[in-house]
Amino acid sequence: MALVVQKYGGSSVQDADRIKKVAERIVRTHKEGNDVVVVVSAMGDTTDELLDLADQVSPAPPPREMDMLLTAGERISNALVAMAIHALGAQARSFTGSQAGMITTSKHGDARIVQVNPQRLRDALDEGAIVLVAGFQGVSQDSKDVTTLGRGGSDTTAVALAAALEADVCEIYTDVDGIFSADPRIVPDAQRLDTITYEEMLEMAACGAKVLHLRAVEYARRYDVPLRVRSSYNDRPGSLVTGSIEEIPVENAIITGVAHDRSEAKITVTGVPDTPGMAARIFRTVAEADINIDMVLQNISHSGDRRTDITFTLPKVDGPRAVTALTAVQPEIGFERVLHDDEVGKVSLIGAGMRNHPGVTATFCEALSDAGINIETMNTSEIRISVLCRPDQLDTAVSALHRAFELGGSEEAVVYAGSGR
Amino acid sequence: MALVVQKYGGSSVQDADRIKKVAERIVRTHKEGNDVVVVVSAMGDTTDELLDLADQVSPAPPPREMDMLLTAGERISNALVAMAIHALGAQARSFTGSQAGMITTSKHGDARIVQVNPQRLRDALDEGAIVLVAGFQGVSQDSKDVTTLGRGGSDTTAVALAAALEADVCEIYTDVDGIFSADPRIVPDAQRLDTITYEEMLEMAACGAKVLHLRAVEYARRYDVPLRVRSSYNDRPGSLVTGSIEEIPVENAIITGVAHDRSEAKITVTGVPDTPGMAARIFRTVAEADINIDMVLQNISHSGDRRTDITFTLPKVDGPRAVTALTAVQPEIGFERVLHDDEVGKVSLIGAGMRNHPGVTATFCEALSDAGINIETMNTSEIRISVLCRPDQLDTAVSALHRAFELGGSEEAVVYAGSGR
Repeated sequence: MALVVQKYGGSSVQDADRIKKVAERIVRTHKEGNDVVVVVSAMGDTTDELLDLADQVSPAPPPREMDMLLTAGERISNALVAMAIHALGAQARSFTGSQAGMITTSKHGDARIVQVNPQRLRDALDEGAIVLVAGFQGVSQDSKDVTTLGRGGSDTTAVALAAALEADVCEIYTDVDGIFSADPRIVPDAQRLDTITYEEMLEMAACGAKVLHLRAVEYARRYDVPLRVRSSYNDRPGSLVTGSIEEIPVENAIITGVAHDRSEAKITVTGVPDTPGMAARIFRTVAEADINIDMVLQNISHSGDRRTDITFTLPKVDGPRAVTALTAVQPEIGFERVLHDDEVGKVSLIGAGMRNHPGVTATFCEALSDAGINIETMNTSEIRISVLCRPDQLDTAVSALHRAFELGGSEEAVVYAGSGR
Repeated sequence: MALVVQKYGGSSVQDADRIKKVAERIVRTHKEGNDVVVVVSAMGDTTDELLDLADQVSPAPPPREMDMLLTAGERISNALVAMAIHALGAQARSFTGSQAGMITTSKHGDARIVQVNPQRLRDALDEGAIVLVAGFQGVSQDSKDVTTLGRGGSDTTAVALAAALEADVCEIYTDVDGIFSADPRIVPDAQRLDTITYEEMLEMAACGAKVLHLRAVEYARRYDVPLRVRSSYNDRPGSLVTGSIEEIPVENAIITGVAHDRSEAKITVTGVPDTPGMAARIFRTVAEADINIDMVLQNISHSGDRRTDITFTLPKVDGPRAVTALTAVQPEIGFERVLHDDEVGKVSLIGAGMRNHPGVTATFCEALSDAGINIETMNTSEIRISVLCRPDQLDTAVSALHRAFELGGSEEAVVYAGSGR
């Protein structure tokens, strides 16, 4: 008998019919002889509706109350799935994050998991029940207040429970068939990957592949929890995230896939005095505005005037705040200008094999050049190459790289709309 | 400094605008130098919407999951009121029933309060915060599961907190100006009562006055919590429920008010063998179907055939089940027929003074007779007279009694629509 953790996103439980379908799958897994723990996100638009209500009553709702509000969404979806399971003749018991022993830090809206004490879940499993846990939420270690885990919270809940319960697999149900060699909406012959290593998946997620949240993958890697990404609309096997790039035979696949991202903006600080500590002061300024930066490029100093340009990318929504923060320190640092480009595209090639295969970078650049795409900024890791380009050239870039590295399959991929929390 | 508990029903928090109004009142009470604890019901139609969802996924949802589902409604409204208070510059902290220490029995959907441990609320009050508590919910003593308190649950939550915190007053905010001598929708000159004793209020509530739930009044009487019923739409003083009929000077008001009820049905079992134990077997049959009966009348035995008729009233919804249960035992008990009248009206006159004033019953009967109303069944307590009549004569009966006992005032009462949980 295996222990399976399943996580269903908001689109998988968006209405009563979808909830009943999800219940059927859960009961089937249970009847096959598995212990089953299920994590459910809030139904479809529930979170947006609650956010809208909050916005109507307060210009700046206190984060503690925001967490109390939003966690109601998962409470509702979990109870409804439990009812639907019960209607199929199986036993089910739903638990809040607090009841499930999900102990977190007290940073409301973005709490970290400190500890998982799943004793009540184990008891319920031992009694033969299917266990449901409200995703995205916990209870703070010190004040015992309700907390939420922020973006990717439900995926992270599922992985954390799988780790604590030593589950055999953590299945992430979504509206796509698995992890693809590129976005099938852009590349029709994109191939579903049977398996992918944690490291590659981390790079894919960090580079814009939305199917799994970076944080959940990091958690899974740390505790060695095999993740299976599957569609809640069919019975296809999906993709398995497991293993390390160190375990891959050198002869195996060089390149795993192409990821892209339209969610970033670019900031260039020009004419920065080329003296020690100036770059640090710029990045400290941005960090103090609580903004995460992604790619960084520092151009070579223009000889003569001893000044340099610093370029970095950041989430689009944070662009204006970064400009404001930098402009405020301009007199002190003495740079020339802040340029803000809120439209950049990022395309990335990921593959564990590229570290042992020379020529990947050359092929990468040739493919983009042949497609008429100008590379603005490049950044690499051991298993990834990323470049910035004009956003309207992004689709062309993805297709060109996918073709150049012969990642295409013979089947057309199926695409569904929607996404979960 | 006083400690005030305020309870707001679902109609008082039905949308963002009403929530902001409620927040203003709460903050005003706090600024006047009071500690304030607030209990809020679920917003307007939330409960009905959740029930509808449950109905769509399961024909018979398990009560444990139903409680998990429904309690989300109060979590949402409480967090929103806390946010609205915060937007007005005051501190607020919301708590679930479980966090507020509301320990109950484990009967899901109809749990009883076993104990209230309001330590976290006291701590928050000591820190100067306004405290919000999700009404209608608790946590079971044995299994630590989420429970709901059933009908009148939010009123009962408020009273129980007022008792546990030794509050100076428990204010119940609703959509009417207080407790009236009769329903102002029927009797335009019905008077708001300044004060009413617990016993009279209990009789009013039991006889159909919907403004307060019987259970909350019983709890308030047991712990001597003064209850003030007020409108959330204006600043009028409302009605105070306090004190015992024993404390009322004999010379004071004879009659308090007229209550009416359209929610009952009547069952008559005819030709019951007039031997010992037959009535008991009939009522045991009804009790085993988990049906509460209200008024009972056993007619005098028809001389000669030694048979009798037994009539009782019960909630309308339980009528068909009672008929089925009784029909099943007909062969065994040997009565003749079960008659089911699903349309009865009940009108009641309540007044602590009537026990010391002869002639009230006579005036009562004369008033109804003069209005052309036939009394079908009568039932009395020390401070109440109730009769059944045709439902289409109920309004006339209420008006006739209100006039006969000179209960009218000079002002017209204001009526709003809607009601809370």
